[in-house]
Amino acid sequence: MSDERIWTAAVLVIGDEILSGRTQDKNVAQIATWLDVQGIRLREVRIVPDVEAEIVDALNAIRARYDYVFTTGGIGPTHDDITVDAVAKALGVGVIVHPDARAILERYYSARGGELTEARLRMARTPDGAELIPNRMSGAPGIRIGNLFVMAGVPHITAGMLDALTGELEGGAPLVAQTIGAWAPESEVADLLRLGEKDHPGVAIGSYPFFREGKVGANFVIRSTDGAAVAACVAMLTAGFEALGYPVTAGGI
Amino acid sequence: MSDERIWTAAVLVIGDEILSGRTQDKNVAQIATWLDVQGIRLREVRIVPDVEAEIVDALNAIRARYDYVFTTGGIGPTHDDITVDAVAKALGVGVIVHPDARAILERYYSARGGELTEARLRMARTPDGAELIPNRMSGAPGIRIGNLFVMAGVPHITAGMLDALTGELEGGAPLVAQTIGAWAPESEVADLLRLGEKDHPGVAIGSYPFFREGKVGANFVIRSTDGAAVAACVAMLTAGFEALGYPVTAGGI
Repeated sequence: MSDERIWTAAVLVIGDEILSGRTQDKNVAQIATWLDVQGIRLREVRIVPDVEAEIVDALNAIRARYDYVFTTGGIGPTHDDITVDAVAKALGVGVIVHPDARAILERYYSARGGELTEARLRMARTPDGAELIPNRMSGAPGIRIGNLFVMAGVPHITAGMLDALTGELEGGAPLVAQTIGAWAPESEVADLLRLGEKDHPGVAIGSYPFFREGKVGANFVIRSTDGAAVAACVAMLTAGFEALGYPVTAGGI
Repeated sequence: MSDERIWTAAVLVIGDEILSGRTQDKNVAQIATWLDVQGIRLREVRIVPDVEAEIVDALNAIRARYDYVFTTGGIGPTHDDITVDAVAKALGVGVIVHPDARAILERYYSARGGELTEARLRMARTPDGAELIPNRMSGAPGIRIGNLFVMAGVPHITAGMLDALTGELEGGAPLVAQTIGAWAPESEVADLLRLGEKDHPGVAIGSYPFFREGKVGANFVIRSTDGAAVAACVAMLTAGFEALGYPVTAGGI
């Protein structure tokens, strides 16, 4: 594995509930943070409605473009859970009842005095050729097929599936990031930020303004795969900010 | 305007900070909720990095497809604020310093004893042919050109811009939604939900499971442009849930 190889990912959120504004998505942030630790960069997110054709189109647009694609949502037992069918259609494969998933669900429900009804059995359906991703929270597994990872919509279930995948995916050099903050208007330090990027090739500086307690300020995130370059850029910016009269808070405000 | 016309929108979030997992997006939910009141359906969201080519490609993919497109992020004074250039490129127009925006910024900074520096003047740049969207929070206006609406990344600034646009955009019949909740496993009521949709054409039922206080439950959102159909479906589901031994909480749990 070369240091130069950058591993990329996209997330496809399947969710009328997010598009209606009813539910605040939590999965993008948790998958992004998890990917970062694996040395994989999240490069794109799409949120589409619970409509098969939309899911298929989005999957086909992104699965060729990124190393890994994660979907969230639409894998439960109800009529609006159509992700498995959409994934199978995008890949041009059939849908089967996965024998291991069926066995997991049988054990799960029988331990709770329940039965594997037809609705519950829907959660054992996978695209043909898929592997399962363990779900220690609620039985019904996630699905891995090719570079696609089919996760739950409920964030704590997806968190458990991410734990199960930790260390399983090949990644590259993790991005090193340092944050500094200052009670400075962005516009006062814009030239300095531009210079910081110019003088430190490979370093990207993000500028994130905020307004709190009646005052403007901003946090600045300095990122690179080269930790020494990040440190040098942070030192330069810190000196420059202080020369302009803006004390810097390491770690951000 | 016919009752049949459905007005649609997409949101393009421009933000390395969202893709890195550092910042939790808040704009999608607030724009979605606002659109709902305007009788416009949010149909797609994309989140892309602060890379001009990615923004241009995404804009061109969605602006032809939906009635309205909102961007958030990348319109400040710093080097990473490239949304205006990307929008101009997507539309094939030049970038100008908008005279009204320049006047707004001059007044804003002079009232605060500051100057319209070159960095701040960046916030007066618009695609040629754009109108401004008032920003009562921090001076720098949003931008409206064709069916594109360029909003801030900072949520409370975007909230102010949405207020300024309220009632300005043509929409259709608003979607009526009622929510009911029950401490029922989704899989126990899946058949009933399927039947509810089948018996009430034009009604969509979303099922959103959760796990709280050691128990599983779900909220069910019943949506249609026909309020009477929503009410009839809610009545049928409520009776059906109670017959299965699951008391229903109106408004959701």
